[in-house]
Amino acid sequence: MEETRRRKSFILLASEAEGIEPELLREGLSSGEIVLPRNARRNEIRPVAIGKGLKTKVNANLGTSEDRADLQFELEKLAVAIEAGADTVMDLSTGGDVDLIRRAILEESPVPVGTVPIYQAWIQCIESKRPLVEATADEMLDEVRRHIEDGVDFITVHCGVTRRSVEILSREPRVTDVVSRGGTFLFEWMSYHKKENPLYERYDEILDMAKAHEVTLSLGDGMRPGCIADASDKAQMDELVTLGELVERARDKGVQVMVEGPGHIPLDQVKANVCMEKTICKGAPFYVLGPIVTDVCPGYDHITSAIGGAVAAAAGADFLCYVTASEHLRLPDLDDVREGVIATRIAAHAGDIAKSVAGAADWDLRMSRMRKKLDWEGMFSLAIDPEKARKLRAASPSSIEDVCSMCGELCSLKNLRSTLKQE
Amino acid sequence: MEETRRRKSFILLASEAEGIEPELLREGLSSGEIVLPRNARRNEIRPVAIGKGLKTKVNANLGTSEDRADLQFELEKLAVAIEAGADTVMDLSTGGDVDLIRRAILEESPVPVGTVPIYQAWIQCIESKRPLVEATADEMLDEVRRHIEDGVDFITVHCGVTRRSVEILSREPRVTDVVSRGGTFLFEWMSYHKKENPLYERYDEILDMAKAHEVTLSLGDGMRPGCIADASDKAQMDELVTLGELVERARDKGVQVMVEGPGHIPLDQVKANVCMEKTICKGAPFYVLGPIVTDVCPGYDHITSAIGGAVAAAAGADFLCYVTASEHLRLPDLDDVREGVIATRIAAHAGDIAKSVAGAADWDLRMSRMRKKLDWEGMFSLAIDPEKARKLRAASPSSIEDVCSMCGELCSLKNLRSTLKQE
Repeated sequence: MEETRRRKSFILLASEAEGIEPELLREGLSSGEIVLPRNARRNEIRPVAIGKGLKTKVNANLGTSEDRADLQFELEKLAVAIEAGADTVMDLSTGGDVDLIRRAILEESPVPVGTVPIYQAWIQCIESKRPLVEATADEMLDEVRRHIEDGVDFITVHCGVTRRSVEILSREPRVTDVVSRGGTFLFEWMSYHKKENPLYERYDEILDMAKAHEVTLSLGDGMRPGCIADASDKAQMDELVTLGELVERARDKGVQVMVEGPGHIPLDQVKANVCMEKTICKGAPFYVLGPIVTDVCPGYDHITSAIGGAVAAAAGADFLCYVTASEHLRLPDLDDVREGVIATRIAAHAGDIAKSVAGAADWDLRMSRMRKKLDWEGMFSLAIDPEKARKLRAASPSSIEDVCSMCGELCSLKNLRSTLKQE
Repeated sequence: MEETRRRKSFILLASEAEGIEPELLREGLSSGEIVLPRNARRNEIRPVAIGKGLKTKVNANLGTSEDRADLQFELEKLAVAIEAGADTVMDLSTGGDVDLIRRAILEESPVPVGTVPIYQAWIQCIESKRPLVEATADEMLDEVRRHIEDGVDFITVHCGVTRRSVEILSREPRVTDVVSRGGTFLFEWMSYHKKENPLYERYDEILDMAKAHEVTLSLGDGMRPGCIADASDKAQMDELVTLGELVERARDKGVQVMVEGPGHIPLDQVKANVCMEKTICKGAPFYVLGPIVTDVCPGYDHITSAIGGAVAAAAGADFLCYVTASEHLRLPDLDDVREGVIATRIAAHAGDIAKSVAGAADWDLRMSRMRKKLDWEGMFSLAIDPEKARKLRAASPSSIEDVCSMCGELCSLKNLRSTLKQE
């Protein structure tokens, strides 16, 4: 990939942010194992490199629905996500003035912004009272163009859902069929028109647009399983094979590309899923949604996904999309966004320690030294969420200043100090 | 182990609760790979079998501290833990009238109750204004006897912390030394008296008491690591080797025994820790505290431990002790107890799916079928926490009855139904 001066300085900033040599980053970018999303139109955004050897990154999904379409609320969610430490955000709005909302988020967001342009082809149909399947291929491509031209840094395009997917699913039914909204839309479109997915057929046009604006493609997994029982099935693996081909075509054209992954996956299959993506997609950064390791916990899917996300990150996943406590129940509120980002950062960090990302375990070591010293201000300042840690301790303090109300003067760390000095 | 009629019927109940053949349970009990804790004095408690091939069980720690010693509050925590689905509880009280509290919990608890008798030898010293190290060996053994005679179903005894542990730690210092309260107490005692751990030296007496009252021993891991940096070190492994010997001695005497495990363990070492316990302790049920996979998340250790617990359970751990959000900060409150139990049950269930425990994945399948049908009452009734799921949905409902406010009429599950019928 040709390096403009603008890009060179961005790579330098990214390597500083990551604490690695610029050369390492450049090598990963050149092999395609790292992406550094930024639309040519965007300037002052945080450099967020995603891929091999780097800290696992965290995305927070924002966006309206028909039932809650309020620009101000979206900007609040954005602020909360950024404050909680999200590395990127995606605007998945489907309600209200989605153009206005997208542009406002692009304006306000200090981090890379992603979208799923295909949603908007659907919304156009709803607004013009046409059946959804009457969206034309041109309309779909136009939405991709509009999002790219607006300055979106990375876009999800479900190019891997093909006629073969429809065929496999009709032969081998699933418990929850297709749960990706983009995937469902294209699946229905193909079923109705008996034609191939326009995003697949006209992939070269998408590549050209992405290339022209330096946009990163995120190849959507429209056939991702929507429950444990459907995990790692033929439909999912077939799509992954297609995505592997599309990764190579993107690289050949000098377009940055990453690959999206599931979804609902039992814990014992998480590593296998990462392994398959890394081999079939030749090391392309893997961007997973969760994964959620059980279906039975609506209200707690920030935890089910933290479990799956940590194991995925440890196995080599590069980028975790949060899942909030409200998943499967409602559009998330501000608390859901905050807790979702934190839970996903915990997963990412646990994975980073396990895969020996440079500097990851140092954070824990510094915390543990503060803990040993019973230096509470030091612990708070290093905590993933200083405010929450401070609040919990303050709500139920110990009568002895340097310990906590769990053990009081039976504090192991405190009591052992003098003994160890004598030994 | 000789089977009394009373025990026979309890085994039958346990196998029914577990949904397995009594013979399978009996085999596991006979080999020592399964324990079924119940003190001979206790009658109507729930049968909770722990070990190989069974559902992973969840323990909730209760108990007062000097700073909060209120019997009523402990009974409320007990009720909350049971309602949230804890399989067992431990009373770790160190403040107030601990005898009264223990007896009240034994009276009220419908599930097996565990304690750590050694704490009380410490408390006796505090009450009689003696230095902690002046507790005598007899006093320690007396506390074990008192707890056993009170009807406690399983007791933690830190018999594996030996003079060798003191020696190893003085040669090879740790970041956070010893963090187990029982371990610290014995460590200090041995350092001061230059004598061996009385719980180790007089292990046969403990076995005799346990045998006489059918009490299950839980061999404590006093040397468990208190931070990621100390994980899987010599002190920890040395203690495990000792515990392996003690397991065999318990089995030889017909005493049920399980083994406790860490603690703070990086994700990539969790499986190795389970493997080591299972080999060295000849398949004894493994009871882990968390494990917590990163040190930097005070306020979120229900999540860091759900990650570690799920991976441990998947690798073969049998029994997970919850860690609450307040760990490292304060004594937990009622919300911490509830959320801690639920998070740990999520970990246990995710592990059970992964290790193919009979019936585990069926729960998820039933949930996913309800989800596909958009049968909300069905989903709530199957949710791990029906009340929370119901509340979240109700707080932000969709204007369309059968979907949710996340996707509204763009609901994939709903839209794809008609398409798939046509295919």
